[in-house]
Amino acid sequence: MIIIMKESASAKEIESVEKLLAEFGFQTHPIQGEKKTVIGAIGDKRLLSMNQILTMDGVENVVPIMKPYKLASKELHKEPSVIEIGHGITVGGKQLAVFAGPCAIESQEQFTTVSKAVKASGANILRGGAFKPRSSPYSFQGLEGDGLKIMYNSGQELNMPICTEVLDTRDVELVAKYADIMQIGARNMQNFKLLREVGKCDKPILLKRGLACTMEEWLMAAEYIMSEGNEKVILCERGIRTYETATRNTFDLSAIPVSKELSHLPIIADPSHATGTYKYVPAIAKGAIAAGADGLMIEVHNCPEKAASDGAQSLTPEKFDKLMKELDPIAKAVNKILL
Amino acid sequence: MIIIMKESASAKEIESVEKLLAEFGFQTHPIQGEKKTVIGAIGDKRLLSMNQILTMDGVENVVPIMKPYKLASKELHKEPSVIEIGHGITVGGKQLAVFAGPCAIESQEQFTTVSKAVKASGANILRGGAFKPRSSPYSFQGLEGDGLKIMYNSGQELNMPICTEVLDTRDVELVAKYADIMQIGARNMQNFKLLREVGKCDKPILLKRGLACTMEEWLMAAEYIMSEGNEKVILCERGIRTYETATRNTFDLSAIPVSKELSHLPIIADPSHATGTYKYVPAIAKGAIAAGADGLMIEVHNCPEKAASDGAQSLTPEKFDKLMKELDPIAKAVNKILL
Amino acid sequence: MIIIMKESASAKEIESVEKLLAEFGFQTHPIQGEKKTVIGAIGDKRLLSMNQILTMDGVENVVPIMKPYKLASKELHKEPSVIEIGHGITVGGKQLAVFAGPCAIESQEQFTTVSKAVKASGANILRGGAFKPRSSPYSFQGLEGDGLKIMYNSGQELNMPICTEVLDTRDVELVAKYADIMQIGARNMQNFKLLREVGKCDKPILLKRGLACTMEEWLMAAEYIMSEGNEKVILCERGIRTYETATRNTFDLSAIPVSKELSHLPIIADPSHATGTYKYVPAIAKGAIAAGADGLMIEVHNCPEKAASDGAQSLTPEKFDKLMKELDPIAKAVNKILL
Amino acid sequence: MIIIMKESASAKEIESVEKLLAEFGFQTHPIQGEKKTVIGAIGDKRLLSMNQILTMDGVENVVPIMKPYKLASKELHKEPSVIEIGHGITVGGKQLAVFAGPCAIESQEQFTTVSKAVKASGANILRGGAFKPRSSPYSFQGLEGDGLKIMYNSGQELNMPICTEVLDTRDVELVAKYADIMQIGARNMQNFKLLREVGKCDKPILLKRGLACTMEEWLMAAEYIMSEGNEKVILCERGIRTYETATRNTFDLSAIPVSKELSHLPIIADPSHATGTYKYVPAIAKGAIAAGADGLMIEVHNCPEKAASDGAQSLTPEKFDKLMKELDPIAKAVNKILL
Repeated sequence: MIIIMKESASAKEIESVEKLLAEFGFQTHPIQGEKKTVIGAIGDKRLLSMNQILTMDGVENVVPIMKPYKLASKELHKEPSVIEIGHGITVGGKQLAVFAGPCAIESQEQFTTVSKAVKASGANILRGGAFKPRSSPYSFQGLEGDGLKIMYNSGQELNMPICTEVLDTRDVELVAKYADIMQIGARNMQNFKLLREVGKCDKPILLKRGLACTMEEWLMAAEYIMSEGNEKVILCERGIRTYETATRNTFDLSAIPVSKELSHLPIIADPSHATGTYKYVPAIAKGAIAAGADGLMIEVHNCPEKAASDGAQSLTPEKFDKLMKELDPIAKAVNKILL
Repeated sequence: MIIIMKESASAKEIESVEKLLAEFGFQTHPIQGEKKTVIGAIGDKRLLSMNQILTMDGVENVVPIMKPYKLASKELHKEPSVIEIGHGITVGGKQLAVFAGPCAIESQEQFTTVSKAVKASGANILRGGAFKPRSSPYSFQGLEGDGLKIMYNSGQELNMPICTEVLDTRDVELVAKYADIMQIGARNMQNFKLLREVGKCDKPILLKRGLACTMEEWLMAAEYIMSEGNEKVILCERGIRTYETATRNTFDLSAIPVSKELSHLPIIADPSHATGTYKYVPAIAKGAIAAGADGLMIEVHNCPEKAASDGAQSLTPEKFDKLMKELDPIAKAVNKILL
Repeated sequence: MIIIMKESASAKEIESVEKLLAEFGFQTHPIQGEKKTVIGAIGDKRLLSMNQILTMDGVENVVPIMKPYKLASKELHKEPSVIEIGHGITVGGKQLAVFAGPCAIESQEQFTTVSKAVKASGANILRGGAFKPRSSPYSFQGLEGDGLKIMYNSGQELNMPICTEVLDTRDVELVAKYADIMQIGARNMQNFKLLREVGKCDKPILLKRGLACTMEEWLMAAEYIMSEGNEKVILCERGIRTYETATRNTFDLSAIPVSKELSHLPIIADPSHATGTYKYVPAIAKGAIAAGADGLMIEVHNCPEKAASDGAQSLTPEKFDKLMKELDPIAKAVNKILL
Repeated sequence: MIIIMKESASAKEIESVEKLLAEFGFQTHPIQGEKKTVIGAIGDKRLLSMNQILTMDGVENVVPIMKPYKLASKELHKEPSVIEIGHGITVGGKQLAVFAGPCAIESQEQFTTVSKAVKASGANILRGGAFKPRSSPYSFQGLEGDGLKIMYNSGQELNMPICTEVLDTRDVELVAKYADIMQIGARNMQNFKLLREVGKCDKPILLKRGLACTMEEWLMAAEYIMSEGNEKVILCERGIRTYETATRNTFDLSAIPVSKELSHLPIIADPSHATGTYKYVPAIAKGAIAAGADGLMIEVHNCPEKAASDGAQSLTPEKFDKLMKELDPIAKAVNKILL
C-alpha cells in the first residue's frame, strides 16, 4: 500500500509510520516529494489494515495497491468461466442464458402455464420465488417448501434447470435439494453468513448485486462464496439505487464491461427489477445483450394485474415472445446465440 | 390509494380499472379533471397492490395514501417510547444513552480496559462486536461465542447493559442469552428472516439503518420486528451511502427529526460508522444531540492503530472523555441529561 | 393536484385547505377515506403551488397530476421529432447521428487529422470543445474564439455540421455564428439564463443531462429552451453521479426508453463522459444503440496520452473505426442506419 | 502522483510510462512490489494530467498526492478566515452569522415586514431573491432589478447587510452595486464563467454547494473565485441529492468538520433548502451550530401559504423567533455568540 503523509507531517511522525509498518513485516520505500512524503509499503495487508495506519498522526491518506479479491479476479483465472447448470445448459459461453418465470410461485397451474410459455419462446432456465423477501411483513411471503416442489415438478417435466432464492442459512439445505441454481438476492448480498453457507454447496449461485453496492463489494461477496470452495458464481446486475425516481432502480450498464475487465465470472442482467416497469424491460434487455451480458433474467406472468408480487414489472407471455424475437438479431450481432 | 390515468386513457380503460378495484372490494371515487381522470380508491391495499394496477392500460401512476407501517408509526402510539434495557438504563427518555466500546472484542483484557474507561467518562451501555460482518472473507471475523462471554463478564462486573450484533438466525438464541440489546447491522436491515427471529425475543433490538435504505424502508424493518411481538426497537442512524467520498458514509442528520415526526421509536446516532474517521466523530456527535437524538454509539479503542477492525474511526479513551465533557452543555441546552 | 390530509387533521383544517384552494380558483373534490381525507383539486397550478399548500396545518402531502412540461412532452406532440442540423444531416430519424472528435480543440492540424479520420469511419457530425468547463481554474480552458474558427474550417472543408459547447450568455451570439449545433453541458443544465438565451437562437441545441438531474428536471430544462421558441432540442445522456466509483459516472440506460415514453425529443448517448475510460466506451455505445438511442457522441483523439483534456476517455481513430464496424450490425438489428 | 501498474504490465510498458513522465519533467521513483510495480512521480501536474497516463497500456490506476486547490486550502492559510461583510458584521469569528428573509422578494412591504421581524429576533444579515432560478420557465422568476432596490432600501433602513443571488455574468455588475454579499446558487456552483466574474468583484461571495458536488469540487469552485483575486468566500451547505425522498435534499452535516479540516473558509448551513420542510428546519439548524457551523441561512415568510416561492420550507416570524431562542444556549455550549 501507499501511505501519503500530510504536508505538515513531522520527521518523527513519518518515522513512527515506518516503524509500525516494519513491526508488521512490511518493507518501506519512502519518496520525498517537494511538499509531501509518500511511503510505499510492501507486505501482507491482512496483518495491518489501511484503516489502522489512517489513525496515526501526520497521515493524510492510505491507498491500496492490490485488489482485495483473488478467486473472483481475472489475474488468477484469465479466461471467462463457463458454468454448468444441469439439463445441458451452461452460463458464460456463446449461448445466452435466459431465466424467465413469475416473480412469485402462486400455484402449480400458474407456474406450469408460464413455464411452458417461456420455454416455447426460447427461455432456457426457469425462475420463480418460493421464499420471497418482501418489504412489508404483511405482504405475501411465498409458498416456501410447497413452492420449491412446484418448481421442481415443472423443471423435471420441461427438462429445464430451475433457479430460486434462498433467504436464510437454515433453508440452504432444503433449497439446494430442489434448485439447480440458488439465488442470493440483492438485500442479502452482504449477508456474509448466508454467502458462506451457499459456498459450501455444490450448486451454482446467482449473486444479485446489492442495492447500493460497488463493483468491488460485489466481487468480494463472490469471493466469500468462492473461498468456501464453490466457484460457480454467476453475477446478476439488477439496478442500483440512485436519486432518479423515473425507474425503480437505475440499471448500471457499465457493470457489464467493468465485471468483464475485473473478473472471469459470467454476468447476466435483470431488466425487470432494474426498471420496475414492464414498458422499459425490452430496451434494457436489448442494451444489456449488446453490451456483452451473458444472459437475462426476466419476469413473466400470465396475468400481471393479478400477480401476487411485482406485477408492474412482469411481461405477459406475448410480450416476452415478441422481445425474444427482437433480441435474436442483436445476439447475432455480438456473436452470441439466443434462439 | 389514488390512481392517476393518462391524458390519453380511454373511457374503457378507466372502466376496467374501476372494475378491477371493485372486484377486490374497493370503493371508487373518480374525479374528472380538465385533461386527466383521477380515481380515489378506498379499501384494503393488502388485497390489491399499487403495482398490479400499474400494469393496466391507461394508468399513469398510483399514489398510496396510507403509510405501510402501523406499529412503528405515531398514529397508533402518539407518545415517544421509552425502552428499558436492564441495569436501570432506559433509551428514549430525558437521559441520553451512550453506547461505547471497541468495534471488535479482541480479549478480556482489552475489553475490560476500554469498558472501565468509557464508564468513567459517562457511557452507560457497553458495545462490542463478537460476530463481525467483514467485507473480506480473509479479515478477522470476531471471537464469536468467546466474545459474548467476555462482554457478559464486563457487563456484570461494571453493572452495565451490553449490546452486540447478531448476524445469523441460527445465532439468535445464543446472542440473546448474553446480550442485553441485540444489534441488527446495516447490511442486515432487510434480512427479513433475521428480523422476524429477533422479533420473537424479549430483548431490545438496536436496528441500524441500511446503507441505502429510505426512512420508510427502515420503519418497515422495525415493523417486521414489532409484528412478531417485540416492540422494543431502537433506531440507529449510521450514515447512508452517497456519491461523496470525503467521509465513509454521509450522516443523515434529518433522520432524527423525520423519525420523530413519523414514529414513536427512539433514535440514536453512530458517528463512528457515519464518518469512518475519528477526527469527524465529535462534530457529528454534537450535531446529533443538538438535533434531538436519544443517544450515541461511539467506537473507543485504547490503541486504534493496532485495532483488529475499524481503527481509523475509533476514539482513544482520552478523546472520548474530552468529547463527553463537550457534549454535556449541548445536552443541557436541549433539555437532556448526559453526565 | 391531490391533497392528502393527515389522519389527525381536524374538520377545520380540511376546510381551510378547501377555502384556500377555492380562493385561487380551484374546484375541490374531497374524498373521505376510512382514516384520511383526500382532496382532489382542479385548477391552474401556476397560481397556487403544491409547496404552499404543504405549509398548512393538517396537510400530509400534495401530489401533482399534470406533468410540469408541455412543449417537451409527448402529449402535445405524439410523433418523435426529427431535427435538421444542416449539411443534410438530421437527428431523430432512421439514420443514427454520430458526433465524434476530440474533447478540446488544440490546433487546426490536430482537429483536421481527427475530423478526417472520424469521417472516414462513418461519423456524420464533428464535435470539439472551444470553451471548456474545467473543474480547475489552472487547467487549459480552451482556445475559445480561435477554436471556433478551427472547427468551422474543418466543417466547411469536410461538409459536416459542427457541435460545440457554449458556457456563457455573453458568448451565445459568437458561438451561434460558427456552430451548427450548440451544446449545453451537464454543469449548465440548470443555468436557466443560458437556456433562455440559446432558446432565442435558431440553432439546434444539444442538451446534456445534469450530473444529478432527474428525467423531469431534464425535460424542464428542454422546456426552458423551447418556451423561448427554439424547439430543436436534442437530449444527451452522459451518465449520472452515483456512489459507484468504478466508472466516472453511471450511464443511465433507462434514460433512453423513459425519454421516449415521456417526450418526442431525440436522445443520443455519450459513452465517453459516462464511463471516463476508453475501455468501457464500446460496450456502452453498443448498449445505447440497441436500447433505441438516436445516436452517439464519442471522444476521439489521435494521441490520447498527450491530449489537453480528458485523454483517458478518448478512443484512438483506430479503436473508433473498429467500434463503428461493430455497431453497424446492431444498428441494423434495431432497424436503424449507421454506415 | 503515484502510478499503479497492472500485475500483467510488461517491462516495456513500465518503461514507456517512465519515459513519458520524464518527457514532461517528472522525476520518477519506481517501487517493485511482489506482484505490481508502482511509480512515484514528482513534478508539475498541470503539464501532464493523471487522465493522460491512464490511457497508457499497462497502467491500472493513477493516484494524486497534492490537493488540486491551493488558495482555499489550509496548507497556505492555517488560521480560519474571518470575512467582513459591511455594516459591522463579520462571518467566521465567534459571532454567528444569521441570514434570514423570504425566498423571493415580492414587494417592499413584504420585505420590510419580514426584515424587521427577523432583525428583532436576532438575524444580522438579510437574504432575499431578486433573480430566482426556478425549475419551471412558467414560475415566478423574481422582481430582478426592482427586487434589488427593495432589498437595498431595507438594508439601509435597518443598517443590515443584504445577500442576494446572481445568476448571469451579465448581471454581476448590477447585483454588486446593491448587494453586500453575492450568492452563487447550488445550480451555478460549476458555472465557471460566473465564478470568474464574481471573483473580479470586491464583494464577499456566498458559495452554495452544488446539488451533487463533492467537497473537493466545492473547494475548487471557491478556488476559481479566489484565483481571480476575491478571497472573501463563504461556503454554504444546503443539502445534497441522495436517494432519500423524505426530505428535499440530504443535509450533509459532515461538510462542516470536513471543510474545517481542509479549508480556512467559513461555512454556514441552510436548513431550509436542505430539508424543504419548515418542520425539520429547527433540528437541522441546531445540529449545524453544535457541529461548528459559522452561521445559518433561514427562509422566513410572514404568510408561507401565499409565498411566491418555496413556501413549504419557510418559517413564520414566530417560529423563527422561537428557534433563535432555542439556538442561543447551543451557541453558548460551543463557545459562540448568537444573541
